Amino acid sequence: MILFVKGQFAMEFKFSEKVAHLQASQIREILKYSADPAVISLAAGSPAPEALPAKELEELSKEILNEEPGIAFQYGVTEGYTPLRDEVKNILRKRGIFNDEYDDVVITSGAQQANELSAKVLCNEGDTLLVENPCFIGSLNAFKSYHVDLQGVTLEHDGVNIAELEEKLRGGNVKLVYLIPNFQNPTGYTMSWEKRQKAFELCGRYGAVILEDNPYGDLRFAGEDIKCIKELDTEGRVIYSGTFSKILSPGIRVGYVCAHKDIIQKIVVCKQVADVHTTMWSQMLCYRFLKKYDLDEHINKLHEVYKHKTELMISEIRKNFSSKITFSEPQGGLFIWCTLPEGVTTQQMIDFCTTAVKDYKVAIVPGSAFSIKDTDECRSFRLNFSTPTDANIVKGIEILGKLSKEMFGD
Amino acid sequence: MILFVKGQFAMEFKFSEKVAHLQASQIREILKYSADPAVISLAAGSPAPEALPAKELEELSKEILNEEPGIAFQYGVTEGYTPLRDEVKNILRKRGIFNDEYDDVVITSGAQQANELSAKVLCNEGDTLLVENPCFIGSLNAFKSYHVDLQGVTLEHDGVNIAELEEKLRGGNVKLVYLIPNFQNPTGYTMSWEKRQKAFELCGRYGAVILEDNPYGDLRFAGEDIKCIKELDTEGRVIYSGTFSKILSPGIRVGYVCAHKDIIQKIVVCKQVADVHTTMWSQMLCYRFLKKYDLDEHINKLHEVYKHKTELMISEIRKNFSSKITFSEPQGGLFIWCTLPEGVTTQQMIDFCTTAVKDYKVAIVPGSAFSIKDTDECRSFRLNFSTPTDANIVKGIEILGKLSKEMFGD
Repeated sequence: MILFVKGQFAMEFKFSEKVAHLQASQIREILKYSADPAVISLAAGSPAPEALPAKELEELSKEILNEEPGIAFQYGVTEGYTPLRDEVKNILRKRGIFNDEYDDVVITSGAQQANELSAKVLCNEGDTLLVENPCFIGSLNAFKSYHVDLQGVTLEHDGVNIAELEEKLRGGNVKLVYLIPNFQNPTGYTMSWEKRQKAFELCGRYGAVILEDNPYGDLRFAGEDIKCIKELDTEGRVIYSGTFSKILSPGIRVGYVCAHKDIIQKIVVCKQVADVHTTMWSQMLCYRFLKKYDLDEHINKLHEVYKHKTELMISEIRKNFSSKITFSEPQGGLFIWCTLPEGVTTQQMIDFCTTAVKDYKVAIVPGSAFSIKDTDECRSFRLNFSTPTDANIVKGIEILGKLSKEMFGD
Repeated sequence: MILFVKGQFAMEFKFSEKVAHLQASQIREILKYSADPAVISLAAGSPAPEALPAKELEELSKEILNEEPGIAFQYGVTEGYTPLRDEVKNILRKRGIFNDEYDDVVITSGAQQANELSAKVLCNEGDTLLVENPCFIGSLNAFKSYHVDLQGVTLEHDGVNIAELEEKLRGGNVKLVYLIPNFQNPTGYTMSWEKRQKAFELCGRYGAVILEDNPYGDLRFAGEDIKCIKELDTEGRVIYSGTFSKILSPGIRVGYVCAHKDIIQKIVVCKQVADVHTTMWSQMLCYRFLKKYDLDEHINKLHEVYKHKTELMISEIRKNFSSKITFSEPQGGLFIWCTLPEGVTTQQMIDFCTTAVKDYKVAIVPGSAFSIKDTDECRSFRLNFSTPTDANIVKGIEILGKLSKEMFGD
């Protein structure tokens, strides 16, 4: 086997098959354009900066480093900082998500780690993993990095197409079904209660585990809450992952996963070899926030911010966009999904996004970034309303509107 | 394929092959006994608590959250906080480790992540990975979690046996050779300059990449520094990983990896799907510490602490242990490796360790925890001198001495 060929100065490496085909996220590539301060970015996936409780966290940080520096600065256990773990269990127990009979919880370095490790513990190379199409790129790449057979199920306004889900499950060898039922990334779509029940039942029938990723669930600013799939679970079929990224801070990197204790035990072993444990200070911050503040009250404040920003962006879209463009009207989360007129090709959609950032200094994410296969057709793009200021929402949408009319007519 | 069997309350899961055989670290199991406050732990791998600059970090934290909360609490880029990355490059450049021609650096969530991701990007399942025998358990398990063919090379007082290394390299298909040349965990052994050169040359001849893990290199309190293997590199054959865990704080989880930019690019993609980025606050703390304080001066202070503790433990061992027990006398790091008399079986060694913690309340780590294969014979155990107080070093070694004489004679 030739591992590498000697060059003049450096070697050519032979990477593992699971990693060789992986590319850096297209979103992050577009975010690089956003480094130009003149660019209005509607491409991010960050929570609204003004909604993060920075002052409160700063105060709590002082308390932590003053009272318990020894815990904050030394090694901790892989499972997570025990007081936070217990508090997360309490919250999930109250919501009917944590089952005392068989569930356990581990604190992770963001929900990203929860999802990646769930795939690692369950999937061999070649095992089938079903995802919504389109799907959050961070999870897509995490799954791809374990060389699974990734298959998409068409995502509709009220969740995955159930007939297609059943057909793919019937095809056999499906180990895991990955779903973001609330305000999905990139579409903002929410799965209906009927479809949640149906998906749970089908996974039971065909022996697949469900990975329910719920990063945006707390950010519902309109409509009625819909129960989590995990609440239907009576035997440990559902792995549930959540995060403090959207409600407290993404930079502190704290998420969690709630699942059957046998699964949690394996996730703990994999987390131990991944990063030993999540930053202690970050975990202690989350714990102290939960103890000192009323989480519901805090979340209600976030809702005002998010509701305002969504409504602003949607009213600006109505005013400015070519009438041939359709768009989702989410009741929560961070994203609006816009679809260019029928007949527009994937390449034309990408050209639209590229022209927007290069010539008009407005960054948006081409929908193809979230496609399962490179060959999937896509004429949609993703807008983020949480990160930009009101002024930039107005200006950004106005510019995109002008460009959309130029390219696709009024 | 039967994925699981329905039980009364819960399912039986079929885990991925790479993870099904993984067990939680034996060290962590023993550390659970240490939760009993009556237990004297000589089993940890933590830096000396009194040597961590907690006050300085507390001050820096205040500055960070006061001046740049927006950076600390929001998402960052996967490659790492740019000022810290640049500073790490500077430090490594000065030491001849960073090669401007082709190297790059990424900040990781501890060196554990650096080592795990290096294996992930290079190794397919079944590829051969050579490690020192015995070897740091965290890395062993990280490699095992990718289902590689893990083979040990006998570790001697001055590094791996070179003839055995060559024989295994000649066997073919060796992708990666993992070495901790300075004050190795668990043995405290340091690889000689001759063996470093020889190992580098052999890996070049047989086309293997070297993963040089150097968590303890800064903690040399006696003897002369020996150049890193990475300093020999002229083509990108060596991946070098380091950490702030031993010199600033392990709880903040900041490490780094320096390697050829093609390898770094793949590590970045894998880190993106693993945890998006390392905690921003932790990275900013490291950066500000490096800018505000003299790192060499800080490290010199650590040396005093570590030199004192090692010398104390070694003199107590001489006074108390059965004379039939041999031990390493490290010039740095955190560990002393003790070997029971010839003829002692692995089971007798484990009994010694178990009796010590259960009946005599002194926790030590059985050497078999660091063996490559379950069938490897081992009659050694690992002592840590950095975490316990002076009083506990004296008391712990006295108790172990008494037990060693009871079990193995004077």
